Amino acid sequence: MSTIPPPEVLKKDPNIPEKLLFGPGPSNMGSQIRESMNNPLLGHLHPEFTQIMDDCKAGLQYLFQTKNKLTFAVSGTGHAGMECAVMNLLEPGETFLVVQNGIWGVRAAALGARLNLNVQTIKVPEGQSASLDEIQKSIEIHKPKVLFVCHGESSTGVVHPLKGIGQICHSNGTLFLVDTVASIGGAEFEADALGVDCVYSATQKVLNAPPGLAPISFSDKALEAIKSRKTPVVSFYFDALELGNYWGCFDEPRRYHHTGIISLVYALRASLAQIAAEKIENVLKRHKENSKYLYQKLAEAGFEPFVSDENLRLPCLTTVKVPEGVDWKNVADTLMAHKIEIAGGLGPTVGKIWRVGTFGINSDKQKIEKVISELKAAVAESQAKI
Amino acid sequence: MSTIPPPEVLKKDPNIPEKLLFGPGPSNMGSQIRESMNNPLLGHLHPEFTQIMDDCKAGLQYLFQTKNKLTFAVSGTGHAGMECAVMNLLEPGETFLVVQNGIWGVRAAALGARLNLNVQTIKVPEGQSASLDEIQKSIEIHKPKVLFVCHGESSTGVVHPLKGIGQICHSNGTLFLVDTVASIGGAEFEADALGVDCVYSATQKVLNAPPGLAPISFSDKALEAIKSRKTPVVSFYFDALELGNYWGCFDEPRRYHHTGIISLVYALRASLAQIAAEKIENVLKRHKENSKYLYQKLAEAGFEPFVSDENLRLPCLTTVKVPEGVDWKNVADTLMAHKIEIAGGLGPTVGKIWRVGTFGINSDKQKIEKVISELKAAVAESQAKI
Repeated sequence: MSTIPPPEVLKKDPNIPEKLLFGPGPSNMGSQIRESMNNPLLGHLHPEFTQIMDDCKAGLQYLFQTKNKLTFAVSGTGHAGMECAVMNLLEPGETFLVVQNGIWGVRAAALGARLNLNVQTIKVPEGQSASLDEIQKSIEIHKPKVLFVCHGESSTGVVHPLKGIGQICHSNGTLFLVDTVASIGGAEFEADALGVDCVYSATQKVLNAPPGLAPISFSDKALEAIKSRKTPVVSFYFDALELGNYWGCFDEPRRYHHTGIISLVYALRASLAQIAAEKIENVLKRHKENSKYLYQKLAEAGFEPFVSDENLRLPCLTTVKVPEGVDWKNVADTLMAHKIEIAGGLGPTVGKIWRVGTFGINSDKQKIEKVISELKAAVAESQAKI
Repeated sequence: MSTIPPPEVLKKDPNIPEKLLFGPGPSNMGSQIRESMNNPLLGHLHPEFTQIMDDCKAGLQYLFQTKNKLTFAVSGTGHAGMECAVMNLLEPGETFLVVQNGIWGVRAAALGARLNLNVQTIKVPEGQSASLDEIQKSIEIHKPKVLFVCHGESSTGVVHPLKGIGQICHSNGTLFLVDTVASIGGAEFEADALGVDCVYSATQKVLNAPPGLAPISFSDKALEAIKSRKTPVVSFYFDALELGNYWGCFDEPRRYHHTGIISLVYALRASLAQIAAEKIENVLKRHKENSKYLYQKLAEAGFEPFVSDENLRLPCLTTVKVPEGVDWKNVADTLMAHKIEIAGGLGPTVGKIWRVGTFGINSDKQKIEKVISELKAAVAESQAKI
């Protein structure tokens, strides 16, 4: 006989309104992705399911533009991808050099501290990026095992230029790790051409899939580094060699490691199939064109971009300065009351900016027009109150 | 311009047949749970979503039969629950005593080794459990910070008796950690009454929800131990204090920690609502009664149970001896060809047993009859071939 009674609140249906998700993620799901999760479950090692995993692997190699055999999706959200990358690539005491131009570099450095790494940072003012010179000098001083760069810094709206960094890393024996959680599919990225040794992302941004998987890929050089570790990876759940076996990345029979997040793998496959059908270059072009349309609409409405250099603006997440005397929260709340989400800043940008995400199917001129006209009206309403 | 072409395989629809999942999990989803995932996404901090998280918290307190305020779901599968528990409760060098009567104790001990814990074990023959005497002696010798017991050992089909262990732990200053991945809802469990300090589970067994969340609960004493740590928890993703804040377990505003697995939280809520509606005592009773029906059908078909003591049999996962001269794999493959899954052994029980899961909606007399009659036919077919 149970002593804790059943909660009354579970007798009611949940309240789940449909909203236009123009924040920094999650974005809206398309109908095919939603419906894919209504499929029956398969076992996590059934041949029909491992085929779907293989399809996803091929789709992720295409998305990341890599031939890396160790390519799969971690069973967790974007931050799980970061933990999988850092935990596998580095051992306690080794040097981890982090480019910090927003919240994600701060997160990576904090994770490094938990893992007893020797963490060094390159601090960049918000809204800007690190130069190749700065990176080269810092690498020569610290000789890090791994350099971390966040490609799409969602707290500032900056897309960090990556060209040339891979070469500097490789001529110094450093592995090049890139966070593309907010950028993949929305900003140009070619892992192999850029000399990236590890890249991870998430499913709830440009991919328009539900949160819960972190696509990740390791180069052969990164794989060698993992195989040469002297200490075990602290987490079994995030152990890349175990995960690589489960995802069939090596020429060996798959072993049970954990129960894959089956429904979300269906959703990931549906998402990757759409990207393959539209072709990645077209997806990128659409995001670029629509971001320019967004800048134009913002300018017409009297708003200023936070990132002054247009080449540094992330085409799928735009940051906008909050005009003098306007309460950012009040405006965001007004939009939310109309079932439209835009976000405020994060970390050091709190209060200074709004963040407007145009991820995947939300990179659409009609939707952008609606959001910006609502934003303009909400600001006018907020100013009228004062 | 991309250099890796889009994969041809993504042009085809995936093959996802409907199967009767009578293995050790995942089990089949009910229609309400499947449909819940077709709901639109909400933001991970939207008030409608945090309400759903609160509903789940109340449902999990009911499921675990606890008043623990630090009760939530880890964004990962069952093993992520184990990592969250062990990483938070213990620091490097501290003593972790593990009851090993199957694969899960082996896993927990291996995780402890990765975390540089002082791991001690109580080894129990497969199909049996540790006695209170053994546990008491081992605790008095090793004075562990944490004792681990797997309640539902899915590799052997044993439900480990828990009564009395909590008292022994508490009179020795030891925290009592229980794995209920395969048992929760299927075998009697009352966290508070049993003096359990930490319990975790998974969603894809009795809950009939998709894999991807690990319900977990920490007692106030466990919370105090976490707050008194000298070293940070090695993983930010699994940091119980950060997760507890995001899940609104403390009297403080919720901070962004990670993007919750929104669609799966909908599914968890739908599952917990069904359990609350049927009432946990009725769910337990149904599993118990149907397991007895299963034993009867197995006996009629000439099969022997692997766990000889009926009181030690897990009512939601039954292990059956593979008859002399029968190829277990051949039989399982025949059933699978008929879209019915039963599993072989795991770890030390490979080749010796079949595992027949009757989780949640699969604890149903008609379905059980079908599975056992197919099993009997497959064995006859396999024997005829020899």
